[in-house]
Amino acid sequence: MIPETAVILAADLGTKMGGKPVGLVKVAGREILYRTITLLRKNGIKQFLLITNERYAPLYREFIERHDFPAEVLINSEPEKGNGHSLFLAGDHVSGRFILVMGNHVYSEAFVERTVKGEGLIADRRPRWIEIEKATKVKVKDGRVEHLGKELKEWDAVDTGFLILDERIFEAIKDLERERNGDYNLSEVVERVKVPVTFADGLGWADVDTPRDVERIRRMLVKTAVKGTGDGFISRHLNRKISTEISALLVERVTPNVMTAVTFALGIASALLTLVSPPLAGVLYQLSSVLDGVDGEIARAQLRTSRLGGYTDSILDRYVDGSFLALLAYVALNEPVWYLIAILALLGSIMVSYSTERFKAAYGGDAYNHIPVLRKLPGKRDERVFLTMLFLFCPSGASIKALFAILTLLTNLRVVLTLYLVAKKVSQPKTI
Amino acid sequence: MIPETAVILAADLGTKMGGKPVGLVKVAGREILYRTITLLRKNGIKQFLLITNERYAPLYREFIERHDFPAEVLINSEPEKGNGHSLFLAGDHVSGRFILVMGNHVYSEAFVERTVKGEGLIADRRPRWIEIEKATKVKVKDGRVEHLGKELKEWDAVDTGFLILDERIFEAIKDLERERNGDYNLSEVVERVKVPVTFADGLGWADVDTPRDVERIRRMLVKTAVKGTGDGFISRHLNRKISTEISALLVERVTPNVMTAVTFALGIASALLTLVSPPLAGVLYQLSSVLDGVDGEIARAQLRTSRLGGYTDSILDRYVDGSFLALLAYVALNEPVWYLIAILALLGSIMVSYSTERFKAAYGGDAYNHIPVLRKLPGKRDERVFLTMLFLFCPSGASIKALFAILTLLTNLRVVLTLYLVAKKVSQPKTI
Repeated sequence: MIPETAVILAADLGTKMGGKPVGLVKVAGREILYRTITLLRKNGIKQFLLITNERYAPLYREFIERHDFPAEVLINSEPEKGNGHSLFLAGDHVSGRFILVMGNHVYSEAFVERTVKGEGLIADRRPRWIEIEKATKVKVKDGRVEHLGKELKEWDAVDTGFLILDERIFEAIKDLERERNGDYNLSEVVERVKVPVTFADGLGWADVDTPRDVERIRRMLVKTAVKGTGDGFISRHLNRKISTEISALLVERVTPNVMTAVTFALGIASALLTLVSPPLAGVLYQLSSVLDGVDGEIARAQLRTSRLGGYTDSILDRYVDGSFLALLAYVALNEPVWYLIAILALLGSIMVSYSTERFKAAYGGDAYNHIPVLRKLPGKRDERVFLTMLFLFCPSGASIKALFAILTLLTNLRVVLTLYLVAKKVSQPKTI
Repeated sequence: MIPETAVILAADLGTKMGGKPVGLVKVAGREILYRTITLLRKNGIKQFLLITNERYAPLYREFIERHDFPAEVLINSEPEKGNGHSLFLAGDHVSGRFILVMGNHVYSEAFVERTVKGEGLIADRRPRWIEIEKATKVKVKDGRVEHLGKELKEWDAVDTGFLILDERIFEAIKDLERERNGDYNLSEVVERVKVPVTFADGLGWADVDTPRDVERIRRMLVKTAVKGTGDGFISRHLNRKISTEISALLVERVTPNVMTAVTFALGIASALLTLVSPPLAGVLYQLSSVLDGVDGEIARAQLRTSRLGGYTDSILDRYVDGSFLALLAYVALNEPVWYLIAILALLGSIMVSYSTERFKAAYGGDAYNHIPVLRKLPGKRDERVFLTMLFLFCPSGASIKALFAILTLLTNLRVVLTLYLVAKKVSQPKTI
């Protein structure tokens, strides 16, 4: 069962961020707190309790109201003390199981999706996006925290600042409150009650401590935002590597819709360029294919995905391909039979996409998930565009004819095979 | 609330059907009982009680087991008495609200979908598929049955044999059982307790009394099985009128998959025929477009629709269109610029379908339902095929060029408009 409540600790004065509450710092176009609340809500968490200090409370309140988040703000008037006291204050407002999350941590969608189902402290044995020397390490014994601290010599994993606890934790806190007059850290509580540990390795998460962290986390958000299903060989090994770098550069500056428009314009420009210089047209076509990943990456990193965005992008892609092949045939061919082949190449190119989208319309699921072997079949857009560029480097009648012939075979065979695989899949006992 | 139980009265010896239980007579490839149980289950009814006579009980039991239906068989050992006694027997097995349905009635999907939400006797003021003189008529007063009978002079509607009752009906039956020694009709019970009436007018339903009825009902099932959304002007006013007649002829003989294959073969044949005789090719293309409705109509009438069937059909249609336009361009054009236009006509033709199917993939709903104005926009397949046939009657360079130019404009403008309408629709407050 996923808990219904999340407590967010944001009382720290965070002096290294220029006096601004860290939770309201934007990374990839969205405040850290916006990210945390939005991703948790997407995964079933219904209410939020934000613990902050007196200075930041009005700013957080205004933010929460503006977004109409189901969150309450609770003030810790002694933020200079250890953050254990912040959790202590939550005790009267929380019952049953709850999520405890640090207000200065940024988590990727995949991280939250996975960890909400965990138990105790979520720890990462292969942290990818943090500075290890500044991290809090965990030594695990019998599935529970044995030691926790920044200076541990021996450790198994790193504390992700994400915990799934239940109300029993408040008993342990009461003792510490008394013993230490309210000045103790959460890590001491966790160590004392030997909270269970759940490993979640190598996913996107990081804490923001200094402005320098923001840049690294921006890259993390873009890199972990790659959708991937439906990516062909060229996309995986070339296009995505470039597009994520471009996305990391642009993600604070550009909206996904602008990128969709720019990519479409570039694609149409590449089609028109076939009239002037096929080799250049091919290169520009490949460039637009690389950029084609950017709008989606930016949208996911900015938590701004929309069905309309995906819909529009998908239709515009088909028009770019259609225009490119149409104009290339127009400029380079002159025998009826080759026009026929060019038309069939175009038909197949669009049908590759049609056959997977129509699958989703019929079955409500992603064809690449249901029939994984489709991912390995050649003929996807990234591969076709790359192939086109290669054949246009030294354009001649023969090379362009060869290109159209290969595209015709590749795409139409792929569609026939898709149809066969879908029929095979759905006639198996387990329906999809 | 839709009731969870349905009682099916099937004790009648039905002498006019050659000694076979009427419920096991096949209409459009499916037994009447199969239809009733399947459609009711689809609408939330969970258990069934079938009342029959001693002679038919073994046959019904075998049938129910074979299909693994959640149904119990109850024997009325005095089937020669009126059918009120059959319902009386159900009294010990039914509680709360329940559906009561005659075992010799055939109902369309739309009828059941609508009437399960009704109350009391479902009556039809505009019965379309029955012989009115043999029907049981209802005189309604203050929303309830006043009189019920075949010979009524004055009446408001016809009894559909479909009732939503509750256990209180058994009180009234008890009195009649005593007074009449078990020999009375259901209609007397209904009249005595003044059951409420719900009107459901003009939908598909009929009773099977003689073998002659079967033929009429077969047509009913085909005519009421037209999907309709996405049908263009030509489909509504021409193709469907012909295809439903063909479907009524074939529905007992052919499976939907065979029809899909035949239609595809005919479509590809029409494409190849462009090489020999464009006018004939156009006629055959239009014929395949008419037949294109038959597989779906038969599948729905036979309760054999499948997502794979729809998926395959949709992809094959695109290939027929693609091949036809490709070969027509090949045979009739010879200037590069007209090939270019032909390619764009093909692109647009496929994109018309792509843009609506991709909508369903993105939003999970039918584009024609969410954006009704799309139904009125020209450019759908039935219209394009018909237009193609017209332009090919007197084929000349000019007429074929005009055809391609019109198709290019019509289809691509339609796609642009679809994109605009979708964007407009989803940016309205109510999301879809």
